[in-house]
Amino acid sequence: MPPIITLTTDFGTSDAFVGVMKGVILGIAPDARIVDLTHEVPPQDVLAGAYLLRGAAPYFPRGTIHVAVVDPGVGTKRRALVVATRDAFFVAPDNGLATLVAQRAAVRGIWDVSRSRARLPVVSRTFHGRDVFAPVAATLARGAAPDELGTRLRTMQRLTLPRVRREARRTVGEIIWIDRFGNCISNIRADDLPHTAGADAHARRTSSAARASRRNARGAFRGRRLSVTIDGHAFPFLDSYADVPAGKPVALVNSNDLVEMAVNRGSAASVLGIGRGARVVVGCD
Amino acid sequence: MPPIITLTTDFGTSDAFVGVMKGVILGIAPDARIVDLTHEVPPQDVLAGAYLLRGAAPYFPRGTIHVAVVDPGVGTKRRALVVATRDAFFVAPDNGLATLVAQRAAVRGIWDVSRSRARLPVVSRTFHGRDVFAPVAATLARGAAPDELGTRLRTMQRLTLPRVRREARRTVGEIIWIDRFGNCISNIRADDLPHTAGADAHARRTSSAARASRRNARGAFRGRRLSVTIDGHAFPFLDSYADVPAGKPVALVNSNDLVEMAVNRGSAASVLGIGRGARVVVGCD
Amino acid sequence: MPPIITLTTDFGTSDAFVGVMKGVILGIAPDARIVDLTHEVPPQDVLAGAYLLRGAAPYFPRGTIHVAVVDPGVGTKRRALVVATRDAFFVAPDNGLATLVAQRAAVRGIWDVSRSRARLPVVSRTFHGRDVFAPVAATLARGAAPDELGTRLRTMQRLTLPRVRREARRTVGEIIWIDRFGNCISNIRADDLPHTAGADAHARRTSSAARASRRNARGAFRGRRLSVTIDGHAFPFLDSYADVPAGKPVALVNSNDLVEMAVNRGSAASVLGIGRGARVVVGCD
Repeated sequence: MPPIITLTTDFGTSDAFVGVMKGVILGIAPDARIVDLTHEVPPQDVLAGAYLLRGAAPYFPRGTIHVAVVDPGVGTKRRALVVATRDAFFVAPDNGLATLVAQRAAVRGIWDVSRSRARLPVVSRTFHGRDVFAPVAATLARGAAPDELGTRLRTMQRLTLPRVRREARRTVGEIIWIDRFGNCISNIRADDLPHTAGADAHARRTSSAARASRRNARGAFRGRRLSVTIDGHAFPFLDSYADVPAGKPVALVNSNDLVEMAVNRGSAASVLGIGRGARVVVGCD
Repeated sequence: MPPIITLTTDFGTSDAFVGVMKGVILGIAPDARIVDLTHEVPPQDVLAGAYLLRGAAPYFPRGTIHVAVVDPGVGTKRRALVVATRDAFFVAPDNGLATLVAQRAAVRGIWDVSRSRARLPVVSRTFHGRDVFAPVAATLARGAAPDELGTRLRTMQRLTLPRVRREARRTVGEIIWIDRFGNCISNIRADDLPHTAGADAHARRTSSAARASRRNARGAFRGRRLSVTIDGHAFPFLDSYADVPAGKPVALVNSNDLVEMAVNRGSAASVLGIGRGARVVVGCD
Repeated sequence: MPPIITLTTDFGTSDAFVGVMKGVILGIAPDARIVDLTHEVPPQDVLAGAYLLRGAAPYFPRGTIHVAVVDPGVGTKRRALVVATRDAFFVAPDNGLATLVAQRAAVRGIWDVSRSRARLPVVSRTFHGRDVFAPVAATLARGAAPDELGTRLRTMQRLTLPRVRREARRTVGEIIWIDRFGNCISNIRADDLPHTAGADAHARRTSSAARASRRNARGAFRGRRLSVTIDGHAFPFLDSYADVPAGKPVALVNSNDLVEMAVNRGSAASVLGIGRGARVVVGCD
């Protein structure tokens, strides 16, 4: 099976930055399968990149190499990393991009590849996606061990994440991402919901994203009378978008096991004026 | 020859939805070639998805598997389908997305794969692109027969399409799509044009999109003095954009054999304020 | 190693134009690796396409086939070309798209493939990306020689490029591209900078983009007290974006060896109101 390399960047697609990275990769690892996760991470928004990477990585085969480049510190002394978990490698600047994937899966090793011999012969000060991250990932894809590519580290930068506060009868979090449909995704996980302690313990023992969403798939929240409030807007807590009429708000546990607010066949973000950072309160009757 | 899977969705590219589908596909069918048709179908716009799929599918090799996910009914009881024609498979929700490809090529079979054993072990209520359509398509790509993936159906949902009205000396239709250049594409096929009865009969006997556009390529309409009117704007009927000076309007039969209105080196949609649904009248002097 | 075909167009991604080209390519050359450079070239902007192609092509393996379609003259008598350099093939309309790659690398041959036998059986008047350029590129990828695909030409169209004026103590150029981050890229190469005559001579003897940027990577400009002025805005000339505080302007030699103006963690184009065509003056104290 050919190695898979995914790319997550804030490079957009109006320049050829991403295409150039692929040229470098294919020059080193001609049989690599390259998959774009997204290149529309908002410029320099490391947290958004971390969130997107976390949602996607669990759905790739074991051994996949995930390259993530949201890199406002390019050209400074910030390190370039390879991070290994049981299932995957992550190649990224040392600025917290790997925080969430490292929360989800135990880290088996961290390497500083800032001065890796795998880099291109000339390393620019502005485009390490091309000069460092792509060639390091491609060299991994060819079978190099991380120890051949850099030196071991004990720690890496981690983001300070917005907190979720669990109280007796409610959970308070915030909106961390607005998706393409205007759905508003919070940092509140299904496990964080009020009065689901039994489900929590089970969820913590399971490991994959897929399993984690099982409770939602079974409709575990139906009829529990949870509801969500954001800026005075109330969202009934149901199972799917179409559980409410077109144009009506609904909250649900989404396909990444996070609490999400939507408007059926509409955009919650634009209809209700909700943005990132908005406070989300999940209450239980 | 490795199997080809195309993807057409309204998922956009700012999230990792599409990347995740590719991860699922490559986990099941590692040698599949995955091609994006577009992910910019306007949200929940099933007709637009059907139009785009119809224009693209004929240009892929026989056996290609086309996955289309524009799915406002995700999480409800709407079925998930595999539709087989002589040339291709279509994997899509049962909401009319396959209407136009099924018009163009005889349907050889329809299967309900809503509860297919090929689905992911856990099926969310909000992302069947990942949990149902991608794994079903990948399993087809590995060589599974549709009968192994679902149960036969006799019918599927079909869209009610905007009508084309053919009169003695004119044809009336409407704008169904605005492309990236602002070109305004109507539902009027070359066959529908006034006073081309001889060409029609021939066209109906030919089957491929490529052959259907041959008459245009030969300049069959040149000099016939057809012209198009939309909202009082007149378009001379010619062969190519550059048959008029820059900034001037022109109508032609486009590369999908549909009547299209353009402004040479400009955007007909923005210059003339034309939108989807606008009434198009093709007259013959 | 499977052949690589890159695609650079102004087709956008909201239609299926690009997907259709890939279908045609894979029907002819099933093992081709297809890489998107960008499809967001501004509509009909041949110079922008030429610039993007020039920056990307040097990073692909030898033998790569670059297809570029920015083609306002589609359907007219403008020719379709294959251009060969030592390292790559370019397949494009004869409108100047290959001007910059032909400046960088010696041209080994030019062929007119307007009437190539590799074209699709039916050639539309509006979509030669599908009907001419894709099948010609795929046939090259299968190993056909250019002489089998068209007839030799001695010349091709070249763009008139905006001039760089080198004076004793300053260099004057203009902004030719705004990238996704709002960075403003000029037509001034590192070689054109004032008072770096020694470096120039060396640079002219070296051939690859990677080598050309070496001087910048070594920080050759640090401390030379170069500075840039655009519309009264001054930019200190440094090495990397983060050499200034967030929100502050900086000029540097970018990863394509061109002088670029940025705002650290911001958008120079929107913060300072700089657009394409703006006059850039690099002065030397």
